[in-house]
Amino acid sequence: MITFEKQAQSGLARAGTIVTPRGQIHTPIFMPVGTSATVKAMTPEEVQELGAEIILGNTYHLHLRPGDELIHQLGGLHSFMNWHLPVLTDSGGFQIFSLAKLTKKTEDGVVFQSHINGDTFMLSPEKSIQIQQNLGSDIMMCFDECPKLPATYPMMEESVALTTRWAKRCKEARTSEQALFGIVQGGLYVDLRRHSLEGLLDIGFDGYAIGGLSVGESQQDMYDILQQFAQELPDTHPRYLMGVGEPEDLLEAIDSGIDMFDCVLPTRNARNGSLFTSQGKISIKQARYREDPAPLDDNCSCHVCQNYSRAYLRHLFISREILSMRLNTYHNLYFYLQLVKAARQAIQASSYADFKKSFLEQYSTGA
Amino acid sequence: MITFEKQAQSGLARAGTIVTPRGQIHTPIFMPVGTSATVKAMTPEEVQELGAEIILGNTYHLHLRPGDELIHQLGGLHSFMNWHLPVLTDSGGFQIFSLAKLTKKTEDGVVFQSHINGDTFMLSPEKSIQIQQNLGSDIMMCFDECPKLPATYPMMEESVALTTRWAKRCKEARTSEQALFGIVQGGLYVDLRRHSLEGLLDIGFDGYAIGGLSVGESQQDMYDILQQFAQELPDTHPRYLMGVGEPEDLLEAIDSGIDMFDCVLPTRNARNGSLFTSQGKISIKQARYREDPAPLDDNCSCHVCQNYSRAYLRHLFISREILSMRLNTYHNLYFYLQLVKAARQAIQASSYADFKKSFLEQYSTGA
Repeated sequence: MITFEKQAQSGLARAGTIVTPRGQIHTPIFMPVGTSATVKAMTPEEVQELGAEIILGNTYHLHLRPGDELIHQLGGLHSFMNWHLPVLTDSGGFQIFSLAKLTKKTEDGVVFQSHINGDTFMLSPEKSIQIQQNLGSDIMMCFDECPKLPATYPMMEESVALTTRWAKRCKEARTSEQALFGIVQGGLYVDLRRHSLEGLLDIGFDGYAIGGLSVGESQQDMYDILQQFAQELPDTHPRYLMGVGEPEDLLEAIDSGIDMFDCVLPTRNARNGSLFTSQGKISIKQARYREDPAPLDDNCSCHVCQNYSRAYLRHLFISREILSMRLNTYHNLYFYLQLVKAARQAIQASSYADFKKSFLEQYSTGA
Repeated sequence: MITFEKQAQSGLARAGTIVTPRGQIHTPIFMPVGTSATVKAMTPEEVQELGAEIILGNTYHLHLRPGDELIHQLGGLHSFMNWHLPVLTDSGGFQIFSLAKLTKKTEDGVVFQSHINGDTFMLSPEKSIQIQQNLGSDIMMCFDECPKLPATYPMMEESVALTTRWAKRCKEARTSEQALFGIVQGGLYVDLRRHSLEGLLDIGFDGYAIGGLSVGESQQDMYDILQQFAQELPDTHPRYLMGVGEPEDLLEAIDSGIDMFDCVLPTRNARNGSLFTSQGKISIKQARYREDPAPLDDNCSCHVCQNYSRAYLRHLFISREILSMRLNTYHNLYFYLQLVKAARQAIQASSYADFKKSFLEQYSTGA
């Protein structure tokens, strides 16, 4: 399936390599989100050219449309979307508790209505694994309950227990050679996080993820949990923080020992004209960029910054041109992928703390 | 400025080369439409990779947004949009008589309201040339009146006279080294077309266009005019049929001696899921393609047909993914550019009539 090797450490920050049958993943890594069998606005060739070594596919979305059985019939997700490097699929849990309308939750699983057309579907640990096996991802995620924060201790305790029982069923349901990661829940309660992790370790997984963060809590609360808890995840396995986040969140989480990330921010922000630069985020629609011949980011060597002016990018955005979403997405993904690449280099040079401090100082100056 | 050399002829169909300071254009040629300083959904690199040797920019749109003075200030249209091969700009006339709300027409020019925000603008021969000079295109078009069909003989006669007077003013207004093409009007009246051409020849231009077709008349009416009249345009200069059309229209027009084309059809159809294949147009959203693993067109060697299934293209279209518009546009432009390339080869092989017949037979079988 997959193996993980740690090559360097700087403080708690780790640099490693995940080896999969479809290629190596150099950590820390950011996984662009390819919700509906496409990283929005990008071709697979571009995503690879940007340096992505793995992308994320959404079980919930693909099950609803076009259907995981259709994708299986057409040779699996890689073949369907023409992406031949590793894919991680989530379990669908997060979307059911956020995007869909949840109609029933039992020990067995959940019943929900599609956000697309209101059709009723059910998802359970076994069903989620079946879907992920149909998709043929390289790394599958356990089907978990992902409660919104704040949540009371008793509610969270019960939820963690359910997620643990579901995790066991997920592992038992797997009949393929795909890797499977467990997901630690427990909200902001460190002891519940520990209890969740113990349950997962008893079952045994190929990697361990922290779920249920960036779901309503403050940034400081998230950082506290990461600093207290992330280092307790097995040193021998990949550690994945799900659905996070801003560039500063990635650096903080890496500093706590996290290896893997996914987030819609770079791609979604791009489509809204919010662009990441070394000096912070800018909104390209602002009138101040109307006549600005400068590149988006003087310090960026991406194709967009090498060839287009802020004035042109603003024009495309104001004119709602498709090329606007393309160029913005390309740049934002480049920014994220360069960020984790630079973090890796700093870890290998044993200078992660300095790198983080220096990046954050520049990033907060304001573009 | 530019030179034109005819290299081969097959019937009335011509193969030639237009030499411009920014590169050679091998005719017959199709010019992708880059309305707002972008060929919709494409990067300039892709447009070039597809084989386009010249694109069209719209004076009306660029004057309104972002403004030709801004583009001039930023180094001209080529630099602004990062396209370094030739550009032809239209005069804005067609859009004023179709897209905008025309509020006043005098000998001097026209006053109209922007389709974007209702702001009032004016355009005249001198103003159109000034804008096109600001844009820095390689080939400019004369500012003409483009009446909708049907139009009565006296109306059309008066309109042709005005277009001729405006053409003279356009030539006098030019102060740059950019080439300038005259536009023949006259609707479906061949004698008025001849009269219009005589007026333009007296003034003298670098190329001659047929305007005012595909504006409401039947396909047969258009073909009749082309067959009767196109061969009368000077053999020594490029001949351009504006805003036309379907693949079969291009082949018919080439057969009448036309060298240059532009049309939004391949790009606009692409965004609506209407795709050109060697066996005719298909609507990719149809349920019959849901599970279809075949490429869009078995006979097409474009990147899309080499890498994606109809099932995937349908999924992207149904899901309204940006990649859908990208891949569809890429394929449709490839189809058009391959069509004119094949036409050129057939002309050089003195077999244009056979080529046209064979293409149309296959194209009408139904995909």
